[in-house]
Amino acid sequence: MSELLVDTNPLPAGISGRLRDQLTFLIEVDRLKTVLRQSPLAAAPRRENDAEHSWHLAMAVVVLAEHADEPVDVGRTVQLVLVHDLVEIYAGDTPLYDLAARESQQEREEAAAARLFALLPADQSQRMRELWDEFEARRTPEARFAKAMDRLLPVLHNWMARGGTWLAFDASADHVREHTSSINEASATLGTARDHVIAEAQRQGWTAG
Amino acid sequence: MSELLVDTNPLPAGISGRLRDQLTFLIEVDRLKTVLRQSPLAAAPRRENDAEHSWHLAMAVVVLAEHADEPVDVGRTVQLVLVHDLVEIYAGDTPLYDLAARESQQEREEAAAARLFALLPADQSQRMRELWDEFEARRTPEARFAKAMDRLLPVLHNWMARGGTWLAFDASADHVREHTSSINEASATLGTARDHVIAEAQRQGWTAG
Ligand SMILES: [Ca+2]
Repeated sequence: MSELLVDTNPLPAGISGRLRDQLTFLIEVDRLKTVLRQSPLAAAPRRENDAEHSWHLAMAVVVLAEHADEPVDVGRTVQLVLVHDLVEIYAGDTPLYDLAARESQQEREEAAAARLFALLPADQSQRMRELWDEFEARRTPEARFAKAMDRLLPVLHNWMARGGTWLAFDASADHVREHTSSINEASATLGTARDHVIAEAQRQGWTAG
Repeated sequence: MSELLVDTNPLPAGISGRLRDQLTFLIEVDRLKTVLRQSPLAAAPRRENDAEHSWHLAMAVVVLAEHADEPVDVGRTVQLVLVHDLVEIYAGDTPLYDLAARESQQEREEAAAARLFALLPADQSQRMRELWDEFEARRTPEARFAKAMDRLLPVLHNWMARGGTWLAFDASADHVREHTSSINEASATLGTARDHVIAEAQRQGWTAG
């Protein structure tokens, strides 16, 4: 845990100060590409990683923002989803339907945030922390819509996988509805689409009852 | 080539119109996670895919935008990098140092853009096309900075790999400088950092002379 990726091959000494800290951070966050989620890809028989998931969320924000019930600033919402999973670099992914892991989640992610964001210059460290806090607190329209996207894409992935983590974690249709209610809270239109997908998945036997 | 991902499991009939088109597009772009680049990850012994690369570029824009010689709109620059590689879903990645593949690149990517963006409602299709065209044309500060990030991250990855694609494609330090000049054109500060990395890589034997 104590070594940074860049420590295995330090940058040339001519790169110093603020920029050296920024490049150290950008190299370190390469680790997000190795954090596996439970979700199966639609395009290949393997699990998704957090970096490609974060990109997909950003695309979803750009394409679906018009359906937000409260108007959202697309640029800021995109920044929220880009950084929302960074803490998992050290804290790991906590599956939605793994209730045991979810108990220790906050403590693990708090420690990870402190460690990771400290690599940046102080002003940027604080800015990253603010984005992460905003996403977690869901007190702005942008954070609520970002969270809705974070729940919607796994619904689409599980639909494409004909069950995916719904079956793997033995989640009933009601359980899925409960854990994806943030979609309906942010967008009536997307909530209705979610309802159609879950109802049809249940009919097909792709949820656990 | 003719089947869309969603055709293997069509969405419920209750999802229609504009939203159905948007979700079809969002499912289809899952394919970007399967397009492999030549670049090695810093965090694991495997090649990078386009989706995680696009996320990493977006992070680089957020963290390094202050170094742009011309002020850039961070939100728009992020959108440029999020969409810049989408055409590779059908056209494939064209390695920087593969000169043969680069000859047919424009034609292949043009056909891919027509096919992929047509999945979206007309206004969004046009918007995606405009973002891609803006990135490609490099006529705005945002597009120039986005391109600089697209050249800078592979420099960092090759540095971390002690050679990476520089050695794999037999690229001399001068060749690398030529192909990454867009970094120096967008940012004197980042250009100087690039110079340090390439000079030290050459000394270490991590470029082909
Ligand atoms: Ca590319």
